[in-house]
Amino acid sequence: MDERLILVTNDDGYASKGLAAAIDVARTFGRVVAVAPETTQSGMSQAITMYNPLYLRKVREQEGLTLYAFSGTPVDCLKMGLDCLLRGRRVDLVLSGINHGSNSAVNVLYSGTMGAAIEGSFYGCPSIGLSLDDHSADADFDAAVEYGRRIVGAVLEGQVELPLCLNVNVPKGRPEQVKGIRLCRQNRGFWREEFFRREDPRGREYFWLTGEFVNAEPEAEDTDEWALAHGYVSVVPVQVDLTDYGRLTSLGEVLK
Amino acid sequence: MDERLILVTNDDGYASKGLAAAIDVARTFGRVVAVAPETTQSGMSQAITMYNPLYLRKVREQEGLTLYAFSGTPVDCLKMGLDCLLRGRRVDLVLSGINHGSNSAVNVLYSGTMGAAIEGSFYGCPSIGLSLDDHSADADFDAAVEYGRRIVGAVLEGQVELPLCLNVNVPKGRPEQVKGIRLCRQNRGFWREEFFRREDPRGREYFWLTGEFVNAEPEAEDTDEWALAHGYVSVVPVQVDLTDYGRLTSLGEVLK
Repeated sequence: MDERLILVTNDDGYASKGLAAAIDVARTFGRVVAVAPETTQSGMSQAITMYNPLYLRKVREQEGLTLYAFSGTPVDCLKMGLDCLLRGRRVDLVLSGINHGSNSAVNVLYSGTMGAAIEGSFYGCPSIGLSLDDHSADADFDAAVEYGRRIVGAVLEGQVELPLCLNVNVPKGRPEQVKGIRLCRQNRGFWREEFFRREDPRGREYFWLTGEFVNAEPEAEDTDEWALAHGYVSVVPVQVDLTDYGRLTSLGEVLK
Repeated sequence: MDERLILVTNDDGYASKGLAAAIDVARTFGRVVAVAPETTQSGMSQAITMYNPLYLRKVREQEGLTLYAFSGTPVDCLKMGLDCLLRGRRVDLVLSGINHGSNSAVNVLYSGTMGAAIEGSFYGCPSIGLSLDDHSADADFDAAVEYGRRIVGAVLEGQVELPLCLNVNVPKGRPEQVKGIRLCRQNRGFWREEFFRREDPRGREYFWLTGEFVNAEPEAEDTDEWALAHGYVSVVPVQVDLTDYGRLTSLGEVLK
């Protein structure tokens, strides 16, 4: 059997500790090509760069791994990998992450990590976004690596129907503190923002986004937010048909 | 009754013809506060700016309209409007657009116009993303304005359940050529990209994203893509729970 080929990307940038952890996970299963952003791209959602040229740079080549930095968004990186560098080759898995910070609940919509993971699933290979509920640059990724390996292994060896996109979130703490894996639905909630407001050194007022997540259903035990808060690894299978089917009929009355 | 208050935003920028057209639509129904990006933000999806300060500039104030330019993404603009400028006030509608170019099918995921419209629906008011299937800067917006008015009016006067987010796409052409409004589901499909590859003036190779939409179901008459291609205004009710419920059980077998 040919060696497996895995594309790794993230949104924290090519030099982040989380990318190295994702490469660790992926290297267990095959050869890795990693294409990651030059700079942090957190919160970039599924954005693509339409009006700027982008630059690609090979950072490192070693046994079983080629690492590139690309000047675009996470989705740009994913596309550079699958549409250009690996064009025409069979890619067995896309792994996006490991993100510094969780992407549970509605954060799946803003997350660059999940933007790339969703995009990956459009290319006919299983795609996994993996995040750790710890924002710090030197976070302990051991639990995320261990559970990442377990889930990637299960997906590669199991019979999974495509497209497949998983949003995996791992709680903070040591591996032995994790209680297990839970399949979950996406928690309902939203962000309420405050704009931090100051004067810059030239006397111009600036705004800086900050905010707080409002969990609309803190007691619901079948959600990713609950699982994560209670020490479990949450796994949400993700699909991208945003149609609100329940309203196709009722809105017909309003719009007629 | 108090005059209605409508927040308008877009992704093509504060000076675009489409924003002026959206303001036209909104002014029919009430007072307008518009917060639009300083520069084009097409393809920015639901991105938020986390690591940069943002600047706000009042562009114009006139009877029934205040227009601001904001240096962030469409979602940043929406949040600036609802979390800051209009904080504590009742906003009756969010209108995002009118986009230069359609946002049917999977484009709902990449579109900054729809990113802002989706975000708007999180704030407890109806939210509509409105796009015209014509990318040109001087596109004829008459049909989009006419149908935009019709749909905004129906939503404001009808009994609609919240949250509500609509993805409305208007075909190119004169208003009298439009065949009517169709409630649709989101078309399945994806983009296959090519990277345009050249040398910049300094001899460095650059990449520029370009691509082609692959419609996975061109014959399906209940999709937005079909409606638009056949001369109808498409309306897709949008929701943001990405959970693939059908797989919660089958994946349990794989991950156990």
